Amino acid sequence: MLQLRSKAMCALTSMSSLSVPPPQCLLQPFTVPHRYLFGPGPSNVPPRISTAGAQPMLGHLHAETIEIMDHIKSGIQYAFQTQNRMTLAVSGPGHAAMECAIFNTVESGESVLIAVHGIWGERAAEMAERIGAKVNTIVTSAGSYYTNDEIEQALAKYKPVLFFLTHGESSTGVLHPIDGIGELCHKYDCLFLVDSVAALGGAPIYMDKQGIDILYTGSQKVLNAPPGTAPISFSERACHKIFNRKTKPVSYFLDLSWLANYWGCDGKPVVIVESLAILAETGLENSWKQHKDVAEYFHMGLEKMGLKLFVQDKKARLPTVTTIVAPPGYEWREITGYIMKNHNIEISGGLGPSLGMVLRVGLMGCNSTKAHVDMILQALADALKHCHKSKV
Amino acid sequence: MLQLRSKAMCALTSMSSLSVPPPQCLLQPFTVPHRYLFGPGPSNVPPRISTAGAQPMLGHLHAETIEIMDHIKSGIQYAFQTQNRMTLAVSGPGHAAMECAIFNTVESGESVLIAVHGIWGERAAEMAERIGAKVNTIVTSAGSYYTNDEIEQALAKYKPVLFFLTHGESSTGVLHPIDGIGELCHKYDCLFLVDSVAALGGAPIYMDKQGIDILYTGSQKVLNAPPGTAPISFSERACHKIFNRKTKPVSYFLDLSWLANYWGCDGKPVVIVESLAILAETGLENSWKQHKDVAEYFHMGLEKMGLKLFVQDKKARLPTVTTIVAPPGYEWREITGYIMKNHNIEISGGLGPSLGMVLRVGLMGCNSTKAHVDMILQALADALKHCHKSKV
Repeated sequence: MLQLRSKAMCALTSMSSLSVPPPQCLLQPFTVPHRYLFGPGPSNVPPRISTAGAQPMLGHLHAETIEIMDHIKSGIQYAFQTQNRMTLAVSGPGHAAMECAIFNTVESGESVLIAVHGIWGERAAEMAERIGAKVNTIVTSAGSYYTNDEIEQALAKYKPVLFFLTHGESSTGVLHPIDGIGELCHKYDCLFLVDSVAALGGAPIYMDKQGIDILYTGSQKVLNAPPGTAPISFSERACHKIFNRKTKPVSYFLDLSWLANYWGCDGKPVVIVESLAILAETGLENSWKQHKDVAEYFHMGLEKMGLKLFVQDKKARLPTVTTIVAPPGYEWREITGYIMKNHNIEISGGLGPSLGMVLRVGLMGCNSTKAHVDMILQALADALKHCHKSKV
Repeated sequence: MLQLRSKAMCALTSMSSLSVPPPQCLLQPFTVPHRYLFGPGPSNVPPRISTAGAQPMLGHLHAETIEIMDHIKSGIQYAFQTQNRMTLAVSGPGHAAMECAIFNTVESGESVLIAVHGIWGERAAEMAERIGAKVNTIVTSAGSYYTNDEIEQALAKYKPVLFFLTHGESSTGVLHPIDGIGELCHKYDCLFLVDSVAALGGAPIYMDKQGIDILYTGSQKVLNAPPGTAPISFSERACHKIFNRKTKPVSYFLDLSWLANYWGCDGKPVVIVESLAILAETGLENSWKQHKDVAEYFHMGLEKMGLKLFVQDKKARLPTVTTIVAPPGYEWREITGYIMKNHNIEISGGLGPSLGMVLRVGLMGCNSTKAHVDMILQALADALKHCHKSKV
C-alpha cells in the first residue's frame, strides 16, 4: 500500500469569493491497495510499464514524440501482423476505438452486418444505428460462434459495406475463428472489422494474412498498460473507402483524416510503447503459447474441481478470459465477493448475455502464469467451501 | 534523463508463422529527456502527480474506485465552483469533452451560436455542423473579444439552443469576460457552454454564479496532469434538455446517459484526483492570484525588452498563455527552435488565426513561477541576439 496525498491544511483566503469550499475528502490521505486483477480487464500493470508512465512529459511536436509514435506504429504493426501504413493509437478507451472504426468506414444509409455473439456486437450495432446505418445482425446463443457458411449467407443477403466480428468475446469467453472470413467479405465487396480488445497478444491473429480491414485492441488487457489508449489499424481497402466518402464522419475527434495527420495522444504514448516493447521482446508467438498453455492448465484444474466451462468447444475457448458456468446452488455474487475479501483477487460475474450464468476470470499479459492459476483455483475451492449453498 | 526499456534479444521462435518481425526500434533503449514545457500545453507534470499515476491499477467497480470518483467529482465541483450533481471526467482529450458537450446538448436541425475568436470556436463550429446543427457564428479579429451587447444581438437574431464561448483562447492569448453572459443566454432560452481548457485554475470562473450550463477543461494545462482526462459539468437546465431529447446523441462513448451511469475512466482517475487535491490544498483563489501575478511580471519583463503583447486590452490577457507579437524582422520558427536547442525550453508559434503572428508562452500550474519567467526572458533575449534578423 502506498499513501497518496499528504495531509495539508486548506488554503482558503479570509475574504473568499468562493461559494464551494475545498472538499475535505481531497485534503485527506488516501491509499490505493494492491489487488490481483483477474477479471476481464483492466489487468495489473507491471512496474516497468507504470514506471514508463512516470517519465517526463513531452510536447506533442517534439522530435522524441514523433520518434515514439513511430515506435508505437511499428509495435502495433508487429502485434497485429500487418504492414498497414494507417496504423496508430487512439487516445481513448476501447469504446472510442470501436466508434473510430465505425464512424470512419460507414456513412448514413449504408448497410452494416454485425455478428452479435455477446455484448460487444450489441454495442457495435448501437453505434452503427446512431449514425444512421442500416444495421442487420446475426445472433447466436451465448457461448457459441458462427460458421463461415452462416456468415456468407448473411453477407449475400444483406450486402453490407462492413462486417463486424468480435475476436475475443469477453462476455461469453469465446475466441471466434477468423480464417476465411476476410476472403468472404471481400468476395461480397465488404470491409472486415474485427474487435480484438480482449484477445490481442493472447491469441493468434494475422491482420494481413486473414484479410482483416480494420482491427483494434485496448491497452488494459494483454498489453498490461493503463486504459485510455487504443491501438487501431486500417487496410488500404478500408482507407480507400474512408478517403472517398461523400459525407464527413460525425466525430471530429475520431476523424481518421485528422488522426492520420496527427493522433491525439500527446506525451502519453510512452506507456503504450513500453507495453509494445515488452511484447516485441517476448515474441508474439511465445505470448500466444503462454496464454494458451496457462488457459489449458486452468481449465484442467477447474474440471478437476468439478466446475464446468461455459464454452463447450475447446478450440473456441478464449485463452485470455475464461467463462465458468456459475456453480449451481450458489449465488455468484457471494463467490466473487468472498474471493475479493479473503483473497484480494478480483474475478467477475457475467456481462450482457452471460449475466448470472457465468463467473469470468481474466489472465492477461503478466497475469497469465500457472502460479496465478493455482492462486485462483485455491480461492475458488475456498469460496465453494465457505459460501452458502442453497438446497436446490 | 531516465532510460526506458532494457536491451533485450528478440524472442522469435525458429519456425515462425509471423510475417512481420519484432521491430528493432522497440528492442533498443530509448531516453525521454526532461524539458521545460512552456508552450500552450501540455505543461510539466510534477513528481507528486506522476507518482500517483504509477499507483497500483484498480478495477472499475472496486469500492476504492467509486470513492476516488467521488473525490474527483468534489474536486471538479470546487475547481468549477459548482454544486452540479452532473459533474464527471471524460476519458479522452479536450476534443472529446468538446464533443461530449455538443453531442449531448444539441440535436440535428437545432440552431447553435458559436463565438469564433480563435481556433477553438472554429473547432466547435465544425463539430456542431457534423451532427447537422444549424451553425451561426460571430467572428472577431484575433486578439479581441465580444461585448455583451454583441452577444445579445446574435442571441436575439439566431435564437440558438446553445451558445459556445472560449474562456481562455490559447490561440490568441485572450481571456474572455464571462459576467452577464449566462443571464443573457437564459433570457433567450439558450444554454451557455464554456470551454475553459486553457484557463481553468489559472483565472477566475464561477460556474454557478455566472450561469454557465456546461463547462469543461483539460488535465494537461493548469492541472499539470498527463492529457487524456477531461473534467466536465452540466447544470440542471442542461440536464433537462439532454434527458428530454427526441433522438439519441450520435456517440455512444460520449452519451451522457451512459457516462452519468458510469464514466469510462477505469483506474486512471488516480492521476487527475491528485491534480485536484493539489488545487484544493493550494486554494483556487491563490492559484488565480499566482497566475495573474506571474503573468503580469512576465508581461512587464517582455515590454522592458521591447517586445509587444498581442492582446491590447490588459484585462483580456489570458494569465496562463501569453501571446507575444512575433518580433518584426525575425523568422518565428528560428526563435522557438533556438530556445528549444539552447535552453531546453518549449515555447510555440501561433495557431489558427494567430499563425505566423505571435509567439506563445504557457505558464500553467507548477510552471507558473517568477523563476520560470526569468528563465524565459533570458532565453528570449539570447534568441533575439543570435537569430538572424532580416533587413526589413
